[in-house]
Amino acid sequence: MKITSSVSDIRKIVLNWKGRGLSVALVPTMGFFHGGHLALMRAAGSKVDRIVVSLFVNPAQFGPNEDLNRYPRDFERDAGLAEDEGVDCLFCPDARDMYPSGFQTWIRVEGLSQGLCGASRPEHFRGVATIVAKLLIIVQPDIAIFGQKDFQQLQVIRRMVSDLNIPVNVIAHPVVREPDGLAMSSRNIYLDTRERESALSLFQALRLAEEMVARGCRSGPEVVRAVRKHIQSYNKTKIDYVFLGDPKTLKQKQDIVGETLLALAVWVGKTRLIDNTLLNSNEQIKLQNINIR
Amino acid sequence: MKITSSVSDIRKIVLNWKGRGLSVALVPTMGFFHGGHLALMRAAGSKVDRIVVSLFVNPAQFGPNEDLNRYPRDFERDAGLAEDEGVDCLFCPDARDMYPSGFQTWIRVEGLSQGLCGASRPEHFRGVATIVAKLLIIVQPDIAIFGQKDFQQLQVIRRMVSDLNIPVNVIAHPVVREPDGLAMSSRNIYLDTRERESALSLFQALRLAEEMVARGCRSGPEVVRAVRKHIQSYNKTKIDYVFLGDPKTLKQKQDIVGETLLALAVWVGKTRLIDNTLLNSNEQIKLQNINIR
Repeated sequence: MKITSSVSDIRKIVLNWKGRGLSVALVPTMGFFHGGHLALMRAAGSKVDRIVVSLFVNPAQFGPNEDLNRYPRDFERDAGLAEDEGVDCLFCPDARDMYPSGFQTWIRVEGLSQGLCGASRPEHFRGVATIVAKLLIIVQPDIAIFGQKDFQQLQVIRRMVSDLNIPVNVIAHPVVREPDGLAMSSRNIYLDTRERESALSLFQALRLAEEMVARGCRSGPEVVRAVRKHIQSYNKTKIDYVFLGDPKTLKQKQDIVGETLLALAVWVGKTRLIDNTLLNSNEQIKLQNINIR
Repeated sequence: MKITSSVSDIRKIVLNWKGRGLSVALVPTMGFFHGGHLALMRAAGSKVDRIVVSLFVNPAQFGPNEDLNRYPRDFERDAGLAEDEGVDCLFCPDARDMYPSGFQTWIRVEGLSQGLCGASRPEHFRGVATIVAKLLIIVQPDIAIFGQKDFQQLQVIRRMVSDLNIPVNVIAHPVVREPDGLAMSSRNIYLDTRERESALSLFQALRLAEEMVARGCRSGPEVVRAVRKHIQSYNKTKIDYVFLGDPKTLKQKQDIVGETLLALAVWVGKTRLIDNTLLNSNEQIKLQNINIR
């Protein structure tokens, strides 16, 4: 596995592959790999000839009071895990190269960035859209794979790629979960034993909502109420949002008619966790049955 | 000369050229070609194997009360002129394809877009940056050529290309002028005979400033005062700005020390004209001697 922090190096590496007719995937990450990241790498490997994983803790997507400095990092471990997954190149640029002195160009996906996580993290998606555009323009992959846990991020990126005519196929990967259902996240490491128990309330609340819909409930407010009640029954939880709406436009919906996104953001102690599921989706493989490793 | 309005067509055409090892230039235009556009095409032809000219009157760079609807258009004439200049492909996309329903991704170059033309045209450079990024991402040229008349636009694009890592060489072409010095512009067609005389005040004021600097004047306020006075001595002129500052950062300067941008925006009747020169520049070929065709 090649490891480079240089923009011109990664360009040369990918150009060389493309010149030989090889297809390329990019898996953008902030490192501290867990099973979710590894699943994205594995999915990439099943679709293309060469896998690039970018590892960059992007300062622009953290707010001033967020966890940029304490965000977990372990480069040696990450490099080992990526190599084990058959990754061909690990691209880990420097912040000074990504945001050099005088940097001032920002990409906004206006509507989709506003609600949900955008409401409590006002510049977050500007940072995400800008760095992902840069990485796609630098690496020029045929496909790029993103986890569906960050559902709003996925839709922001899909819209940006389409609006800016970036020639890449954006692929979503289902949420990967711990054996008990907790969505995998680098931030789970922040949780102490009791918080870890409370963190399970997100997954359980999603499953509760799925069961309500399976039993015929179509009332958004009723589902949201039940979800809130369930989460609040746990210690140290504080709900940021419980959102029910259209998965494409991210506009709120009253009734659960057609495919409907149920997305959650919950503080557990000092850790903000997110999770989501698609209700009423024909294509949906139910949460109970998937990705429980 | 090929003519296409299709994004996938132009991609295929350029990919085919690149596969054969040919270099490609993009000359982005809004059409209604004059000598300035033709000079850009000629300059492109001297540097690369294949020239793409894009022709798109970009609605996103016009303000709500600006001249989008009356902006001059003459496709047949433009196609003939481009063909005569040896252009290989004219790319003239539809607004509905460039800004499809639901479009919501915008690129801002924050500092550089704020003063000068950005002050009176608040969303103008957002529209310029976004469409130029789209065109560069679609066409993927080796070089892109822009006229120096739109100096702020040039710097906004240079910064965007650098910040977003777009792999293109941005080339500036000196202002091309009418025999009497008026900077060529598609908007010159709006001017009646008397306004055409007043329009010359911009070029003359720039030359006046150059002469002051050549005689040793280094005071910004003194030069600005003389320039304003000269322009205001003409009928139907109304100054939007007379700017003196750093050509890279577009920050205002008091003294004419080092290379200094003098940029003007002046209403002549209902037509807004711009022009500029670099004062105190070693590399500068003086206005008197260049591009007077």
